[in-house]
Order: sequence, then structure tokens, then C-alpha cells
Amino acid sequence: MAAVAAAMRWRLLLVMGAAVLGTSGTPQPPNILLLLMDDMGWGDLGVYGEPSRETPNLDRMAAEGMLFSNFYTANPLCSPSRAALLTGRLPIRNGFYTTNAQARNAYTPQEIVGGIPDTELLLPELLKGAGYVSKIVGKWHLGHRPRFHPLKHGFDEWFGSPNCHFGPYDNRARPNIPVYRDWEMVGRFYEEFPINQKTGEANLTQIYLQEALDFIKRQQAAQHPFFLYWAIDATHAPVYASKPFLGTSQRGRYGDAVREIDDSVGKILNLLRDLKVAENTFVFFTSDNGAALISAPKEGGSNGPFLCGKQTTFEGGMREPAIVWWPGRIPAGQVSHQLGSIMDLFTTSLSLAGLEPPGDRVIDGLDLLPAMLQGQLMERPIFYYRGNTLMAVTLGQYKAHFWTWTNSWEEFRQGVDFCPGQNVSGVTTHTQEEHTKLPLIFHLGRDPGERYPLSFASTEYLNVLGRITPVVQQHQEALVPGQPQLNVCNQAVMNWAPPGCEKLGKCLTPPESVPVKCSWPH
Amino acid sequence: MAAVAAAMRWRLLLVMGAAVLGTSGTPQPPNILLLLMDDMGWGDLGVYGEPSRETPNLDRMAAEGMLFSNFYTANPLCSPSRAALLTGRLPIRNGFYTTNAQARNAYTPQEIVGGIPDTELLLPELLKGAGYVSKIVGKWHLGHRPRFHPLKHGFDEWFGSPNCHFGPYDNRARPNIPVYRDWEMVGRFYEEFPINQKTGEANLTQIYLQEALDFIKRQQAAQHPFFLYWAIDATHAPVYASKPFLGTSQRGRYGDAVREIDDSVGKILNLLRDLKVAENTFVFFTSDNGAALISAPKEGGSNGPFLCGKQTTFEGGMREPAIVWWPGRIPAGQVSHQLGSIMDLFTTSLSLAGLEPPGDRVIDGLDLLPAMLQGQLMERPIFYYRGNTLMAVTLGQYKAHFWTWTNSWEEFRQGVDFCPGQNVSGVTTHTQEEHTKLPLIFHLGRDPGERYPLSFASTEYLNVLGRITPVVQQHQEALVPGQPQLNVCNQAVMNWAPPGCEKLGKCLTPPESVPVKCSWPH
Repeated sequence: MAAVAAAMRWRLLLVMGAAVLGTSGTPQPPNILLLLMDDMGWGDLGVYGEPSRETPNLDRMAAEGMLFSNFYTANPLCSPSRAALLTGRLPIRNGFYTTNAQARNAYTPQEIVGGIPDTELLLPELLKGAGYVSKIVGKWHLGHRPRFHPLKHGFDEWFGSPNCHFGPYDNRARPNIPVYRDWEMVGRFYEEFPINQKTGEANLTQIYLQEALDFIKRQQAAQHPFFLYWAIDATHAPVYASKPFLGTSQRGRYGDAVREIDDSVGKILNLLRDLKVAENTFVFFTSDNGAALISAPKEGGSNGPFLCGKQTTFEGGMREPAIVWWPGRIPAGQVSHQLGSIMDLFTTSLSLAGLEPPGDRVIDGLDLLPAMLQGQLMERPIFYYRGNTLMAVTLGQYKAHFWTWTNSWEEFRQGVDFCPGQNVSGVTTHTQEEHTKLPLIFHLGRDPGERYPLSFASTEYLNVLGRITPVVQQHQEALVPGQPQLNVCNQAVMNWAPPGCEKLGKCLTPPESVPVKCSWPH
Repeated sequence: MAAVAAAMRWRLLLVMGAAVLGTSGTPQPPNILLLLMDDMGWGDLGVYGEPSRETPNLDRMAAEGMLFSNFYTANPLCSPSRAALLTGRLPIRNGFYTTNAQARNAYTPQEIVGGIPDTELLLPELLKGAGYVSKIVGKWHLGHRPRFHPLKHGFDEWFGSPNCHFGPYDNRARPNIPVYRDWEMVGRFYEEFPINQKTGEANLTQIYLQEALDFIKRQQAAQHPFFLYWAIDATHAPVYASKPFLGTSQRGRYGDAVREIDDSVGKILNLLRDLKVAENTFVFFTSDNGAALISAPKEGGSNGPFLCGKQTTFEGGMREPAIVWWPGRIPAGQVSHQLGSIMDLFTTSLSLAGLEPPGDRVIDGLDLLPAMLQGQLMERPIFYYRGNTLMAVTLGQYKAHFWTWTNSWEEFRQGVDFCPGQNVSGVTTHTQEEHTKLPLIFHLGRDPGERYPLSFASTEYLNVLGRITPVVQQHQEALVPGQPQLNVCNQAVMNWAPPGCEKLGKCLTPPESVPVKCSWPH
């Protein structure tokens, strides 16, 4: 049945002109290249208005492709948003959340016990059904214990790390993060893979670039359709760049990292052109969450005109840069106002491969091909969660906040500020404010900065509430939360002795196993 | 001598390929078209990152021309910035300021006694020397008493109004603002030229568009080089649009106005193409000051990632959208990081005409042609004044604030907020805070939102201070302020009986003359 459905979808794509013939004359599905940035903000690209305009390659990508101005991640934090991308499902469904405290952001630090459940079907697993070879370059962040390894979840190759490049650690209280090639560790950050925190120098983006170029060349030579998930992290603090880029940006070190990424994207797209596979490669560029304003200005980016940043469910935390490029297929120079989600990359990729999404579970991602190829607009809600709490929803131009919160007064007074320089009374609150009965509603077209809630007494408010309420009710009534994966921490599960450590002589001894409830302060 | 200098500059422009031959075979200087917006913000165009992306014609203008990301007005308010544009001089020199109270923004309401002094040389006066025919369409705002009439200051034609389109008034305590054709009033706003404040409907942009198209056609037919100053005001509250545009924007009424302007700019550029004069017409698009956030979200625009808006000397008040378009002369798709000023349009226009700026006075505007034609970068300061007070200066990437102020606590507590949703501690102050000894310094590349002052103790701070101090000292020591024009108000000088009122039967009787000090609250 699945094969029949795939064949039918293929005929559809052929009719739409979206499939090409391979050299053998048989139709070959397009290669899929997802370029996922880390903590890059909506306002960080020239084409999104960054004043220094230092991203000529990404700006060109947009000019040759389609830019989304209303594209969202699924969570304002890295791990859950990446889990959502690869499963097409909200973190509340795929388990990437916590119930330890209400509305807390949780992710996968080294001590996390959980990770991506085996029951979840990941994009590379499914793409195998259409003959794809898949590689992840960079940050996995879906759990680091052996059962969560990306090669156990559909990827054929991996070069990168299971966690963030925080450190350096002393390898006693906390091990340095390992870097893997496929099944085995080949070194650790700050050791075999140096990052100079003082100067910001690291060659990692260059290494990740070479991994991408090499993979593309090999798959092209082998005539395999490929899925490359390029999940690099130079724009996540500690921000880094290689020597030729350090000090070249008008924006400081963060800008240096962006410039190196921009240059790398240019080289990847050029390779696709040189190999003459550009017209058979679907490339999508986006980010995992908004810019980390707590690291600004030296190591954090820009969310443009939007409110707050990473960790929050304001637009600055969840609206992302998003560009799709597929020369000859997607018309050049277009802007789409489609409300898009990082989870749509799952469904859209399956559609490109001629595959149906799994029918045995709820999939939140939409197939965006009608928006991309025919400029269609589909009405759909965007849900903004923090942990187990539905904070807000956007429907059309309207966003309703059911809860507002930035972080606690205690944290804020210690200098942890998710909204530096911004303060919207009653909105950027430091206590968890409930508005579930009468949500704060904003019109994002007139008020993208979420500064002017609609008057509760206005006809507009009542009309919008009447449209949003049933959408939210339906969502909440049908919701079956997944088993929360981010509740339990244990020092013993950290990266003490990843596979391959023996060959390198770099195995460390884990401490006694003491499971504890993870503490998630925000 | 002037003719010799002009001829020499002509030879230079010919060498640079920037001059063309007229049909008669004699070199004809390029037409000059300045499109000046009213209260439009840096972030209001798609190409500057406005999320709704509703300005396809302006975005195309930028793609075909050069975009400036660091372009400034000379004052965060309309009259002084317009006086600066047309004189090439800071308001503190040309008299468009007040000394009634420190650091107060002043402009030209109906009761103002002053206006542009006869001693000032305006751009259209000077362009006559190179054979230009000049027209102003829209808002003059350089004084409304007879001596200040634009046709007494070099313009050959006028269609528009001397003041803002505030109203409607009762013609007893305050007359409605007149609309002039050349020397005479042809009606008043809200009477012959209706603006429906409830619906926002007005045909004014269409009328101003037709005036522009008609003028261009006539001058082209007559083979006159022309200067057209298209100073329209649909984006100034009360914001308006014509019926076909009302309700069409995702951004509400303000966006409707922007869409109509964008459409009009497209029609103007198309006419230039159709008439085959595009390659001999220099077109510059900018705005008089930042978006008026006090009118947001329904009637105010966006300053993108910048701090505060109109009336302030933060970036949101003074950094402007700026696009230059001159097909075949200025390379397409360029971005210039040159620090530019609205006053540069004076000097650049003279340069285009082969004229020297007046040598008997200080001119603040630079000739931007080297930046536009050859991509050169020239170091120069940008001075930010409020009234008689130098509030800040930008040099390179660094901005130093000598005074900070938004508005008084009293006003703020009454709801007048120039920085809605924004609050930078110690920066967006409601008392006039002096920092002349130790200015607050920001790096605008790393921190375009002016959120993170450099540490006073840092080497960077000390180095920058050492560079900025002599520039400011030199400026202040050499400064000879002009006679302040905006100190005295008098109800008797309002637009009671403009020339032509007899023919229309619309002369009103002025009250007794009672000169008073104008009150400038901000």
C-alpha cells in the first residue's frame, strides 16, 4: 500500500514539474538539504533587515528562492525544536518536555536521562523507504545515551556532537562533549576539537562545511538521493569562527560566526550548481529558536522588530528566518506569508520523497509544497509551548497569549534578562500570569512587536476569540501527551565513556548513579 | 567663475560616465527626483525587513539601485529635517530650532511666526543656475507666512500645503490648512480636499502622484532638466489612503498608506522608464524622521530593530530608509554602509547639476556621488540635535550620547510614550540627563538597539572617546548658530487668508496679533 501511495504521489509531483528524471531515466526524488542554525534570530540576515547586511550568500539564496516571513519553530529551545523538526510532531507529543514544574523550558544537557523515544519515527528512518542516504552534520541534541544515537534513528552517517559545545570542563565533575564520526567518538571539544573561548577561534564550521561538501559529492557520484541535515552551531554561545573570519564583521564575534556560515552556505549552493544537481535539490534554511538575547551583544544575535528572544514564547523566541531554494522549481524572488512551522519540514520532505507521513499518530507538520510551488495559503494554527504549558497560539494575523512569562523575578534580579531593553507592561511578566479565560490578543500585522493588546471590549477581540477558542479546544481535547523525556537527570549518564573512547584512550569513569529530578529554572 | 567651476565639474561627471547628452547633443545634467516620506520609519519597507513585505516597488527600486543602511535625518522632527535637506545645513545653522527651553523639538505649526530665512540658499534656487525647473509636491513646512512661500525660495511650481494636514478645524479658533497651486490657495484640507478621519479615506496621494507624473512629462517634453521634490504625507497621522488601497494591507491603515505610496513610486519609476529618461534621472527615496510611535499601531510605522522613534535622538528617531536609483549609473543591488545624511541630498544634487555648494557658509551635506558611483566610504560625523542641544554624535560604528531624554515624566504619565515597549535603564530617561563629560557610548554594529553602553573602564571606550572628543569640540567651537526661527508664535499669523482666498470666497478674519513664546513640550 505504501508503495502504491508513493507511486501516486510521484505521478503528482511529475505533473507539478517537481520531480526530475535520474540519469538512468527513472524518476529520482529530489535531494533534501536542511540547513539548521543554532540560536540565530529572525533579524540576523540582511534580507530580514539586519543593518550591517553581511549575508550576501543567504540574501542571494532568498533572491533565487522563496522567503517566509511567518515561519516558526516548535519550541523556544534547541532540543525540543530539533525533536519536532525530525518527528513532525510537537514536543508535547514526542516527549521533549518536562512536567517537573509548569511552563519550564527543558533540553538535553549531559546529565539528562531521556532522549528521543524508539517509538518516534524520524525523518531519515522514513526517507529510507524512498532510497535516501541520510547524514547529520553537527548537533544532534536528541539524547546522548547509546539508545538515542542518531544512527539508531535512521541516519546513515554522523559527524558532530550529541550536546552543545559548552565547556571547557575538567573531565572530573563533568566530561567535555564528545565529537562523533558515525558510531564512535573521535575526540572531544576543547581537546581534539579546540575552541578558544578568549579569541573565539575554532575551525568547526569549516570542518562541518567539508563534511557537507564531501557527503554531497559522494552521494551525487553514487546517484543516491540524499538527506543532509546540516545542524551547525557557531552562533550558539560560546560563539566561534575560524581565523579568516574573526574580526571581519561589523557586528563583533557573533557577526563573524554569521559571516562564516553565510560563506559556507554559498559554497554549498555553489557545489550543487557545479554538480548540476541544484534543480534536483531542495534546500531549506532556518533556525532552531530565536536569538539568545541573554548572550547579546557579544554572543547573541538579533530578533529584528520582535519581542524578547530564546526561551520565551513571544515572537522573538519563536519566529525564525526561513528560506527555501530549489532553482527551476520554486519561483525566484518570492515571499510567502504562509504560517510555517519547523515541523512542516518533516511532512514536506516526505512529500518530496513521494512518501506519506505515518498514519498511526498525530503529525503536526503540513506539506508546504502547495505554498512553495503554487503560492497557496493554508490556514493553520501555530502553537507556542513552554514545557507542558500551551502559552499562546497564532491563527492568521492574530496571536492569543494564554500565559505570559519571561522568567522569575529571582532570576531577573540576578541579571538573567530574556527581553533586554524591552518591557511591555502586563506582557513581559516575571510571574506566570494566566490569561486562559481572556487571552491577551495581538494583531501581528499591525503590531509585530506585541506591544498593544486588543481591547477586551472591542468587536475585533470578541470575533477573534470566537475563532481561536474552538481551535484551541480541539487541540487540547485531542492531545495525548507523550511520555516526558526531560524530567530525570543523572550525573552517571554524562558523556564519560562514549563508544570509541577505548581506541582514543579517553574513557572516563562515571560516578555513582543518582537519578534526580532535573531543575529547569525558566 | 561659477560657470567655469560648473563646466569643470561637468567634465568630471562626463569622465565618470555620470552625465548624458541631451537630444540636441549638448550635455544635460540629470533630472533629480527626491521622494521624501513623512514619519515613515527605517523598518517600514520589505527590503528593510518589514515582516508583511508589502512594498514590492520600493524593494525593486532597491534591487535595481543602492540601499543605505546607515542614513540619517538631521532632526527627529519634520520642519527642521526638511529645512536641513533643502539648505544642506543643520537646523542649528539655518534657524530651524528653538531656544525657548533646552533640547526641545520645534516645528512649524500654523501659529509659528518664523520660517526659512531669506539668507538661506535653497536647493531649487541654486539649481536654477544649471537650468533646472523645480517643483514641490506636498508638504513645505518651512513657514507659511507670505515671505516663506516656496516659490519665493526657488521652486517654480507647488502643489501642496504649508503645514501638516491636521484637522478638521472650525475656521474660528483655527483655520483649516490651505492647499496651494503655485502662488494661490485652491482649497483647504477637510473642505475641498477631504480626509475622512473615521474611514481614513483621502485621495491626496493620488493627486500628488498625478502632479508628479504630469510635471515629469511636461519637463521631458520641454527638454528641461528638472528637480522634483515629492514630499507626500499619507504616513503622517491622520494616516490616509484612497479607497482602492483602504483595507488592503496586513498592517492596518498605516500599511494601506504605505501600499499606496509604494504603488505610486512604482508608477513614477515606470513613467521614467517609459519616457526613456530613467538613465538620466537620479531618484532618491527617504523619510523626514523616524516612525511616530506615539501614533502606533494604527497610525504609526516601524523603526525595525532600533530604539524609540520620532522626537528622540535614538536611532529609531533619526535613522531612515534610503534608496538611490539611477539605472545604468549606480550599479544595481548594492548596499552602502556610508554614513549618510539628508543634508547630503543638497550637496549631491548640486554635484549632479555640476554646481559647487555655496562657499560663503558652512554646508554640512557631503557629495555622496563617490559612495554611490564608486562605492567609496568617507568618514564623517552624524550630529543628533534636539533644538539647541547636541544630544549625540555617531562616528564610524560608535555613537556617543551627551544627553539622554525621551520626554518629561509629566507627559509620560499622561500616556505620551516615544518608546512604547522599550525601556533601557539610564538611557530612555524621562529627565534630561547630562553625559557631556562621560558620554554613553554604543557600538551600533554589535548593538543597533542601543541597549548596552560600553563600560566606561574599557579600553574600547577610552579609544573611542579619544576619537570622538576632538570631532565634537571642533564642531562646537566653530558653530555659529543661526537666528532661531521657532521661538515665537502668534495666532494672527495662521492660515486665515492665504493668497487666492478671495477668488474662492474663503478668506477668514485673523484675530488680534499677540506674539507669545511658543511652548515646545518635548
